Parts: sequence; structure tokens; C-alpha cells
Amino acid sequence: MAAPGALTVNYTRIQTLMSCFTYCRRPKRWINLKTVNRRSSFCQSLKRHVATVVSGAELARQIHKEVQSDIAKLVAEGNRRPHLSVILVGDDHASHTYVRNKTRTASLLGMSSSTIFRPSSVSQEEMLELIDKFNRDRNISGLLVQLPLPEHINERAICNAVAPEKDVDGFHIVNIGKLCLDQRCMIPATAAAVWEIIRRTGLETVGKNVLVVGRSKNVGMPIAMLLHSDRKHERSGGDATVIMAHRCTPLPRLKELARLADIVIAAAGVPHLITADMVKEGAAVIDVGINRMQDPVTGKSRLVGDVDFEAVKEKAGFITPVPGGVGPMTIAMLQANTLVTEEKKIVEWAETRLCLLLASGSGSDAGHYTE
Amino acid sequence: MAAPGALTVNYTRIQTLMSCFTYCRRPKRWINLKTVNRRSSFCQSLKRHVATVVSGAELARQIHKEVQSDIAKLVAEGNRRPHLSVILVGDDHASHTYVRNKTRTASLLGMSSSTIFRPSSVSQEEMLELIDKFNRDRNISGLLVQLPLPEHINERAICNAVAPEKDVDGFHIVNIGKLCLDQRCMIPATAAAVWEIIRRTGLETVGKNVLVVGRSKNVGMPIAMLLHSDRKHERSGGDATVIMAHRCTPLPRLKELARLADIVIAAAGVPHLITADMVKEGAAVIDVGINRMQDPVTGKSRLVGDVDFEAVKEKAGFITPVPGGVGPMTIAMLQANTLVTEEKKIVEWAETRLCLLLASGSGSDAGHYTE
Repeated sequence: MAAPGALTVNYTRIQTLMSCFTYCRRPKRWINLKTVNRRSSFCQSLKRHVATVVSGAELARQIHKEVQSDIAKLVAEGNRRPHLSVILVGDDHASHTYVRNKTRTASLLGMSSSTIFRPSSVSQEEMLELIDKFNRDRNISGLLVQLPLPEHINERAICNAVAPEKDVDGFHIVNIGKLCLDQRCMIPATAAAVWEIIRRTGLETVGKNVLVVGRSKNVGMPIAMLLHSDRKHERSGGDATVIMAHRCTPLPRLKELARLADIVIAAAGVPHLITADMVKEGAAVIDVGINRMQDPVTGKSRLVGDVDFEAVKEKAGFITPVPGGVGPMTIAMLQANTLVTEEKKIVEWAETRLCLLLASGSGSDAGHYTE
Repeated sequence: MAAPGALTVNYTRIQTLMSCFTYCRRPKRWINLKTVNRRSSFCQSLKRHVATVVSGAELARQIHKEVQSDIAKLVAEGNRRPHLSVILVGDDHASHTYVRNKTRTASLLGMSSSTIFRPSSVSQEEMLELIDKFNRDRNISGLLVQLPLPEHINERAICNAVAPEKDVDGFHIVNIGKLCLDQRCMIPATAAAVWEIIRRTGLETVGKNVLVVGRSKNVGMPIAMLLHSDRKHERSGGDATVIMAHRCTPLPRLKELARLADIVIAAAGVPHLITADMVKEGAAVIDVGINRMQDPVTGKSRLVGDVDFEAVKEKAGFITPVPGGVGPMTIAMLQANTLVTEEKKIVEWAETRLCLLLASGSGSDAGHYTE
């Protein structure tokens, strides 16, 4: 999966922005999730002058533990370990890093994984054949094709070729359709990460104003879908009033709308787009942006978000940092998705077995799921 | 298809609302679409004190003419007439009226149509068998199942059973997925109606604030999808900043957001929800609500929208009435959808024929499309 809002920014383009960029000089107050009341109202306090910084890395560790424990149970019950397969095309450095992180985390949690490398000259036909082979392979629980793909390959055709039940990225058209119809489905990992950050920190969403900046089909759009929809539907939603802003939203209007937002989710891929003057006192700010910038002084490259972290944290009630916020949570949610695909397969297998047994009236052998 | 936001309102529930209800006492100024400049800025004028009332019926007539002319051409070229099939379950009076309007309009435009009636005791299996039969029938261009269905039938299963290429309602999960991914698809008729009203009256949407009140999967959600998305994508969008409000949005917050909106689209199914104090001077107000109310004086039933028409038209720049606004346009867009299914079939047939001819190297007969 492509990094949310990943963007390599030209130095000259962001020179003016850099002048106000200071990198986390003061010690951050990291939220200890174990001690926070799940329904605490820390984002509503108007007296706090420094935001609670929520560590996505810490939250991700929480999810890792849950996934790890579930996998251990699964295996102890005689089932196969979930297996994550990744197809990686070309030599893009960032893509290789993302894939390495995904498969390494899978291993740490007790899943097996494999990465299939193909050169950027690979044909669409070969890709489709490969995906078809993996779709039919019962040993593979979850399958993802790392995006972006070379220009000669139709990404939509590739996403739709992955079997919906193995589609851990949630990019298949049927999974998108289900998401938008509030049905249970594979939720794209970054959107799921934002949802889990909100849920696990006890932020209230019902009737609140949520501003989503960015409308990408893998991040902004699914986040808006999750947050605006009904909490009582099959796939629970946030029941929030959602404002979908994007690059066509004029800056003065973005500011006006942002000031009304209880939660701002920045997923535009524009460094420091969200400034302190745009944020309501005590609001929650979730930064999905991952922008690679070059420091004008040291010349070193580093990651920054879409939010002017240092300034905004003086005003917001709650903020996620970059790096260490939504990023690690995205990888964690991908692992959770992979586990779900395997669990679903087991349930389906058990249901089929039960039907067969009832039909034949026998309880005899005929193949265990691990076989 | 169910009427957008159709709602039979209990008298006692709306008694207080009725006190401020006055039915169009003054003559309306109907917009003559032939004389309006397609890019006119009439909704932006701050000097106008009475809104331009856009007749959906007049716009629908425009679309009817276009569809009629296209069908005549199709038939003159030796092709079959498009055929609309409707499955109607139960005895609901409103559903029977809607279906009659749909099929009657189809006939007027030169399409053939058929309605298959089933009692409300029909089983889901029988419905699925019927749909499957119609899916395979080459004589049927478009197929719709009138909603709502009796409670024992899963509406989603029925919508997903209709072949996506015959799904003139645009309710199939693949059509919803395509809509949300900005791909060319069958757009639900009411959402398409709102889109066409905006397009044909030259309302600007790029960078504008659009408030969509109501999040139903057939109306509010697809309207939000159309309006917020990129105008340069395969399925062109409105590039507007879209605010998705619904029954969980507190009224004071709805008012605050409505006052920032250049276009208000009311699709909540709540009579007179949008009042004059909520609307920005000169804004465009599109009323999708169809609420059946009983007049406390005469006792007669009549249709009203979600907008307090008489009061709002004194402030808005542009307004659609109920009845005679989005309603007739919805029926027109359904006919346009049916035509599109037939045209697509012809193109696909021609492509297949061409491939076969190229493969065989012959240009001989082998069946005309009309055969």
C-alpha cells in the first residue's frame, strides 16, 4: 500500500514554509494509554495549553499484542498461521521500506509472510496471472500489491484482481462498495488506523464536526465514510458531521471550516497545511500526512506531516505526531486485517464442514483445516 | 426505486411546523431555461430578493426530448427499442404511483416497458429467480426493483442480484463502488437529478461550499460523492467542499454550517427543516425531500419538501420547488439511465462482432443486433 499522502517535496517549493519549521524542541508529553480513561474528555478542555500527544507507536504496540495473542490462540487450536503475501514492483526506495516494515511486523506477530519482487518492466498480464495464482493459493491469507505501480499498469485493474476476501488493503471495488454502504468489510489500513486512534483514545464523534482534508480514495474518502455514517449500522460509523475539503477548497474557506471542527484529520500531503490559527482551542488533530522534506540547514531529509506540529500542539487538545502517529498504526491495522482474512476463512471452512457433516449424517475425518 | 426521502409524517408530530406553512400564495417566477445563460451567476447576486425558481418539470422535459431523439436515432439505425422492466412487490399506493410514472414516461419517450407484480408474501428465493431470469433476457435493457420491499426480503441481496449493466437504479454494490471511485457508472437517479439541475442551470461548484443534509445510501451519500470529487476524473465531479450533515447533527451546528453554504441540498425527509435563517443570501437551495403532509385545515394530503419554500425563496438566489423540482428530474434521469444501458449493450455487441470478424477474416452476416 502506498504511504498515505506520501510526497517528496521540492526544496524551493517549501522554502518559505521551512522558515517556521522547528522540530520538536521541547519534550513531548506522550499519552500513556493504559492510564487514560477510554471516555476521557481531554480534547474538550479549554484550559489546557499544550495538547496531549498521542503516540501512534504506543497504540500500535497495543494492537500488536492483541493480534499476536489471537494468532497464538489460532495456532494452538491447530490452525495454520496467517500468511501475508506482498507483490512489490520496481525499485522505489520508499516502497521497499514500507514493504519491509509490513512483513517484518507480520513475522514479529507470529504470521508468516512472503514478498514477490518484479521489475518495473513487468507486464499487466503477468501481474494478473500472479495475482490469480495467489488468489487460488489456500496457504495465503492476505495479499497486497504495493502501490504505486509503473504507469503502464492499470492500478484499478490490479486492485480489482485481488480476491475481495484476501484484499487486506481494502482497495477492491466490492470492498469499497461495502465500506460506502456501511457493511462489514476490509477497511483500508490508514482509514482504519485513524478510526482506531479515535476509538481507543475515547474521542467523541457523535454530532461533532470533523474536517477531513484530502479526498484520496485510499485515505480521505474512506475516513469520511467511516466518520459520517451511522453507529448502529452493520459496520459502525462515527455519526459525525463530516466536511470533505481538498485542494480545490480555497485557503480562507478551509480556515473558516477548520475553526468549526472538533476533529481535524489532515491527509492532503501538503507540509504544514494546518496551522495554529486554523485550529479551534482544544480540538483533536490527527495528522495523516507523510511528507519527505530536506532540512535547509543540515541538508538531511526527514519526514513531516500536514500539520504545523509545534504551533498547533499549543492550541489543540489532542495531537498525533509525524513520524510516530498514524504511520505505525497503519502497519498495525494491516496486520489486523490479515488476521481477519484468516479468521473468516476458518469460520467459512467450519460452516461448510458442518453442512457437509449434517448432510452426510457422519462425524468422520475428511480433512482438517490445517491439512 | 423509492422516492427520495419519501416520508408519511404523523400529523401530531408536525403540528408545530404546520403553523408556519403557507403554500405558494404568490405567483412563482419560473425560470425559462432556454433564455438563461448556461454560466449565469444568478445564484451569486446579493441584490435579488426573490429566488429564481427552477422548474424541474421544465428541465425534465428538456432531458425527455434528448432521450426521445436518441431513441429515435437508435431505432432508425435498426436497433431494438430500449426496454425497462420493473418488479413491483406489494400494494403500497406510493410505490404503485411511482412505478406507473416511470413506465408511462418510458412509453412516451419511445421505450417499451413492463411491470411484473408480486404479492408482498413473495419469497426472497422467488425474487432472486425472477431477477436472474430478467438478467439473462437480452430483450430487457434496464431492470429495477421498486423499493421498499417487505421486511422478510433482504433489500441489499436483491439490489446486488440485478446485473450491474442492467442496474438503472445504480444500487448494485459494484455501481456504488464505481461511483465512489469516480469511475463511469450508473448513478442513482435522484443523485443524477441533482447533478443535472446544477449542471444545466450553470451553478458553479468548484471550490464552493455544498451542504448535503441527509446521508441515505441512495440519495445523500451519492450526491456528496458526486459533488466533492475531481472534475477531471473518469466520472466528472463537482470539486466542491462538501459538508455531510444528518440527523445526528445538532440543529445549531446545522444552522452554522448552512450559513456558510453556497449550495444547500436538503435530502433529510424532514418537512421544512431548512428555514430562511439558515440560508446565506443568494445561495442555491435544492430540495430533494418528498414528505406527505395533511393540511390541518382542509384535512387533505399534499407533498412538501424539506425546505420552507415560501420563506427561503425570499433569501435564496435559486430554489427548486416541491412538487415539480427534483421529482420529475429523477424520473427523467431513470429514463436516461435506461437508454445508457441499451447504448452500452450496442457498443459491446459491435466490439465483439468486430473482434469476431477480424479473427475470422470475413465480413459476412452472422446475426444483427436486432435479431
